[in-house]
Amino acid sequence: MRQSVKIKSYLNTQKKLVEDALERYIPSPSAPFEQNIESMRYSLFAGGKRIRPILCLAAAEAVGGSATTNEDLLAVACALECIHTYSLIHDDLPAMDNDDLRRGKPTNHVLFGEAGAILAGDGLQSLAFELLSDAALSPSLTALQRLQITHTVAKASGYAGMVGGQALDIANERQEFPFEMLQNIHRSKTGALITASIHCGAIGAGAGSVQQQALLEYGKQIGLAFQIVDDLLNVTSTSKQLGKQAGSDAALGKATYPSFFGIEETRKRAEKAIASAHEALAEFGTSADHLRQLADYIYERSN
Amino acid sequence: MRQSVKIKSYLNTQKKLVEDALERYIPSPSAPFEQNIESMRYSLFAGGKRIRPILCLAAAEAVGGSATTNEDLLAVACALECIHTYSLIHDDLPAMDNDDLRRGKPTNHVLFGEAGAILAGDGLQSLAFELLSDAALSPSLTALQRLQITHTVAKASGYAGMVGGQALDIANERQEFPFEMLQNIHRSKTGALITASIHCGAIGAGAGSVQQQALLEYGKQIGLAFQIVDDLLNVTSTSKQLGKQAGSDAALGKATYPSFFGIEETRKRAEKAIASAHEALAEFGTSADHLRQLADYIYERSN
Repeated sequence: MRQSVKIKSYLNTQKKLVEDALERYIPSPSAPFEQNIESMRYSLFAGGKRIRPILCLAAAEAVGGSATTNEDLLAVACALECIHTYSLIHDDLPAMDNDDLRRGKPTNHVLFGEAGAILAGDGLQSLAFELLSDAALSPSLTALQRLQITHTVAKASGYAGMVGGQALDIANERQEFPFEMLQNIHRSKTGALITASIHCGAIGAGAGSVQQQALLEYGKQIGLAFQIVDDLLNVTSTSKQLGKQAGSDAALGKATYPSFFGIEETRKRAEKAIASAHEALAEFGTSADHLRQLADYIYERSN
Repeated sequence: MRQSVKIKSYLNTQKKLVEDALERYIPSPSAPFEQNIESMRYSLFAGGKRIRPILCLAAAEAVGGSATTNEDLLAVACALECIHTYSLIHDDLPAMDNDDLRRGKPTNHVLFGEAGAILAGDGLQSLAFELLSDAALSPSLTALQRLQITHTVAKASGYAGMVGGQALDIANERQEFPFEMLQNIHRSKTGALITASIHCGAIGAGAGSVQQQALLEYGKQIGLAFQIVDDLLNVTSTSKQLGKQAGSDAALGKATYPSFFGIEETRKRAEKAIASAHEALAEFGTSADHLRQLADYIYERSN
């Protein structure tokens, strides 16, 4: 089977696994809180690729863990998707990127109003930490593992991670800035949660510190590749392909990899990051094959 | 010494203890994330009463704990203040209550813009969970205690707690609704985090389940009293006394205790909740005296 066929089948299987778990872990609308729950569910089930949960599960697999026997790890994967989804809802707000379309569907604030969308995001963040810290869920993670996972996600989400990165991104719109600032924005806004997703899988499957370090390096590199490819797609795709406004970065005056280096050099840099991600996995055997395929998949999106 | 003098001295001491801890636990502005950190710090140090942290510490004291010997409990207290502050920042946004003034100072979005204020709130929520889940902080809480505390705060903050309550509150502005809905709003929007603050102190100090139940009942009653008194103050105070727009509930068409029952009956209901709070502490000795004084203090604010 060709690599690209294999990874597509793997992605579909894992996506279903994650979405079934989301159905179990995300509350159903019930009185009196049905409006807030419905607004959270809308964006959570609006068709994401579930990359962060899938990376979390693949990292666990690389160190001998299995999502099918570790229900707790699936709850962790769901929590990561809650954090990611909340960040999209808030990024799309009129006060931020002011996007009306996401994955080909109306954004949260278009349907639920600005207040509703702010609260959907806020509620999803709380829900993520509720899932991460639920000791009663099942005994397959120790309290210490669960605590370390919670801490990893909290740090990656906060002022020196995703939120700090979005603040930097907004503050630097229509500004001239050096390439170092673009790296700061990417590492914090997108990279931190992607790396954390992999780290959580590693902690949950009981990885030792050498394995954790290798997986963190892998995470750093694919986080970088992911953002470079996103920058590329924003320039080279149509709105229909993206499911959101194409060229929106340029319209907002946002500096991106292509605006610094042009399209060809940007593609090379993505390629280099993917090669480094593979190198980071050198000491792993076939258990890391899905991580390797995921790295290739992230790059292939750019072509 | 008169009770009211004693409680004021206690409140001042505890407030200083909490604010010194906030200085230790809240990051200082540093590049490249200084803007987000500054906006979080602005609202965090804009002069709150620190009631939730103080309740947390007093609940720990009631079951034999001490904040001065339990640094972890102080970090928990700081996390509670982060959650409370984030909720105020988001509640004040133009898309929500649209308040320009809070505690006599410009609200977060007036100074940092809407995007900045949304991200200040988001960052404070993450920071709260970062503090709660930091196993490296000190060994005075076990991983399981820390996890239970994290879970308690997450649940109280989310769709069936504070966020859900704010969503209900917004959805019911300028609406006729039964008294049961007002109770739902109060219990979730304000009551849940107040009760959780007390619960966290109890868990952190190793309370048994009978003690926890009693403290939860105390928390429920003072949470109720707190909200009733807030409703009363909104009607009976001047803007200068409140440090925010007086009569804003009526202006927003919000149903409140006084709008259902009038001022006299509302005051009686607050009195009854305080009496029930005292009853809940019947089995505690002098270690719960500060909790008793805090209950009285909450009621005295209404006069």
